[in-house]
Amino acid sequence: MRQIRIGLIGLGTVGSGVVRILRDQAALIDQQTGLSFKIVGAAVANLDRERAGDLQRIPLVAHVSELINDPSIDVIVEVMGQVKKAKALISAALKGGKHVVTANKDLIAQSGNELAQLAVDNHVMLRYEASVAGGIPILQTLRTVYTADPVNEIAGILNGTTNFILTQMDSQNWSYDQALQAARDKGFAESDPTNDVDGFDAAFKLGILTKIAFGLSVSQSQIEITGIRGIAVADVRAARTSGYELKLVAMAKRTSAGLQLSVAPMVIQEDRPLAKIQNENNAVWVKSANIGTALYVGPGAGQLPTGNSVVTDLVQVGKAIRHRDPAEPFALKRVADLPSIIPGHRSYWVLLASPDNDQLPANVKLLFGDVKVSQPDVIRGLDPHRTLASIEVRLDSPMPLETFVNLTQQLGDIRAAYPVLED
Amino acid sequence: MRQIRIGLIGLGTVGSGVVRILRDQAALIDQQTGLSFKIVGAAVANLDRERAGDLQRIPLVAHVSELINDPSIDVIVEVMGQVKKAKALISAALKGGKHVVTANKDLIAQSGNELAQLAVDNHVMLRYEASVAGGIPILQTLRTVYTADPVNEIAGILNGTTNFILTQMDSQNWSYDQALQAARDKGFAESDPTNDVDGFDAAFKLGILTKIAFGLSVSQSQIEITGIRGIAVADVRAARTSGYELKLVAMAKRTSAGLQLSVAPMVIQEDRPLAKIQNENNAVWVKSANIGTALYVGPGAGQLPTGNSVVTDLVQVGKAIRHRDPAEPFALKRVADLPSIIPGHRSYWVLLASPDNDQLPANVKLLFGDVKVSQPDVIRGLDPHRTLASIEVRLDSPMPLETFVNLTQQLGDIRAAYPVLED
Repeated sequence: MRQIRIGLIGLGTVGSGVVRILRDQAALIDQQTGLSFKIVGAAVANLDRERAGDLQRIPLVAHVSELINDPSIDVIVEVMGQVKKAKALISAALKGGKHVVTANKDLIAQSGNELAQLAVDNHVMLRYEASVAGGIPILQTLRTVYTADPVNEIAGILNGTTNFILTQMDSQNWSYDQALQAARDKGFAESDPTNDVDGFDAAFKLGILTKIAFGLSVSQSQIEITGIRGIAVADVRAARTSGYELKLVAMAKRTSAGLQLSVAPMVIQEDRPLAKIQNENNAVWVKSANIGTALYVGPGAGQLPTGNSVVTDLVQVGKAIRHRDPAEPFALKRVADLPSIIPGHRSYWVLLASPDNDQLPANVKLLFGDVKVSQPDVIRGLDPHRTLASIEVRLDSPMPLETFVNLTQQLGDIRAAYPVLED
Repeated sequence: MRQIRIGLIGLGTVGSGVVRILRDQAALIDQQTGLSFKIVGAAVANLDRERAGDLQRIPLVAHVSELINDPSIDVIVEVMGQVKKAKALISAALKGGKHVVTANKDLIAQSGNELAQLAVDNHVMLRYEASVAGGIPILQTLRTVYTADPVNEIAGILNGTTNFILTQMDSQNWSYDQALQAARDKGFAESDPTNDVDGFDAAFKLGILTKIAFGLSVSQSQIEITGIRGIAVADVRAARTSGYELKLVAMAKRTSAGLQLSVAPMVIQEDRPLAKIQNENNAVWVKSANIGTALYVGPGAGQLPTGNSVVTDLVQVGKAIRHRDPAEPFALKRVADLPSIIPGHRSYWVLLASPDNDQLPANVKLLFGDVKVSQPDVIRGLDPHRTLASIEVRLDSPMPLETFVNLTQQLGDIRAAYPVLED
């Protein structure tokens, strides 16, 4: 039985999960792979902090260098977070000939290419399944199942905190602030929730998915990012009343003009499975040439789901060590044949108070040309004084939300307008 | 560039898909894997049958032995169907030292263990991703992502034909016969639909999943199989009106008493993603110790989705040939620690006309002991003469549907009763 020796950096939520899974499932892992995994030591910031009883057998070290320089260690698992420090130590580990498994999405989104090249140069593996969508094996799936299947679109609910907030606003009729506080109470949201609610976390994950699915390296500035901060419960309820669910959707979509990249609140028709992804769950929807449409759903975070993704990577590294496989690059070597990145969406839902609901479709066509527009749904009860009309407009080409709203307000008093996730 | 040489047996729907993907995506496959795949020849039953123009370049052979005995061929792809003949030729190929990829679920469900042992004995690989759930990579996912994650339950919509029938009955208000005819017209159902509508196809797939997820080999006789033949549209509509969707669900569930295996029409609460899987789509839901609940959704059949699963297997075989990896067994070597297989379900939905709706929960408890029972939902409009009550009962231990119905009819006139897929 080959023993794979691990140096663990960080013993927080994810690190504890890795320790527990490797211990509790050692027999299962052995049965199925013939491998055993041993955590040689864990580097932690505070040696004196009290740890749960079942973690106390792990030898702690104060300096990461003790792990990186230990010649008996095969793999470094980095689960401490932080970008700059993590980059330095992962670089050192790779240069020292150690394989690396990390859950650090910010780092991979920003420096994945550079670290991947370093791994290839040093004939070691760099894996990071846990960096996107917690327990959903989306990176491995894109790497293997889509090897011969060109991807046309990836869309996902990639941030569990914002999905929890939106679900609670909807189900409890809570304000944004009330739902954010509930997310804090549950430990989903940090005291400064910027990274989650302003869409940056989802955008980092989208960057990693875009690299793997389309071969294109994108910076955050190339993604149109709109968060959910301060979103009105009236919008969430209006969407629901009109037959949609409001979700924060991260999307990379191939169009004739280029790749459209956005993180934005969007509405999803309620009879679609993606509309039913609730609370802290994540989901990734992939449209491709062969498979068509597929959906992968699971928990977006948490000790054991995220720990499981790290362990899945460790098992792959262990098998590669045994087989002496060549190092695996950061992304599939897809050709980035996409010339440009364009903003905007093609389909919009708009809820408005119009002087003449029956004339709405004709008036939309006067504004936008011969586009597709649904028959208006008359919505009562959202406004005490008047009925509102809910329509869905499908334009011929993408348009930014602001432009769409500026044009559409000629038709009436707009109460809500969001892009629609198209089939 | 290593060329992998293929002998194709069968050039029907799936075989044509494999030919087209390997041809159209050759550049992408090369980029990402450094492998090229060449179809040396295809064995077909009728050499004279006219083929689509783009298939005419494939050299046809009349006898499978020409492929199996060709020393230049690395892999046999079996996509002709038929159990007995396929078993003989796959056995011959494995004994001849050829890797085998097959889409033949009936064969793998019945003889998977035997063929897998033959593959191991001959140091070759046997793969069959396409045999379950078409374009969903569920076998590979179970094999890799669940290596260290014990599975507690697998439930799925594994038969696209029956899901199409149920979806159409619901959305079009069609009878079973009308919906079956529509499925025939679309090419989803065969002239004798027994295999699909009586649940046998789903049961074969469940057998394969059970082997891989739980390590347990089960025969069809160990699965409680109920199909949807002749199901009443009134039941489909009543379920919908009561807040459920009716689906044919295949399930393997670990309980304290053993593994419960069933294929049966069940209801799913409408706010669950699985309730929204429509038409010919498939879905597999996995509950496990680490990840918790995950859901994998995609097309259940079709030329390109199923062809893609065959190609994914071929790429894995190609990589293994290059790395000289050892042969992979039929299933994960999980310990089958499950002593017995027990029938029945714990949760039931029942719609009934009761003399006293308010007393229903108390009366249920008189019958079944202190079980969980929902407050009755009063349903109007399904019966012109009386209101009906919809309740959900969660028993303490599993009970067969027939027993449940026999007991429950003391409470009123039962209009519909189905097991509920529990969270």
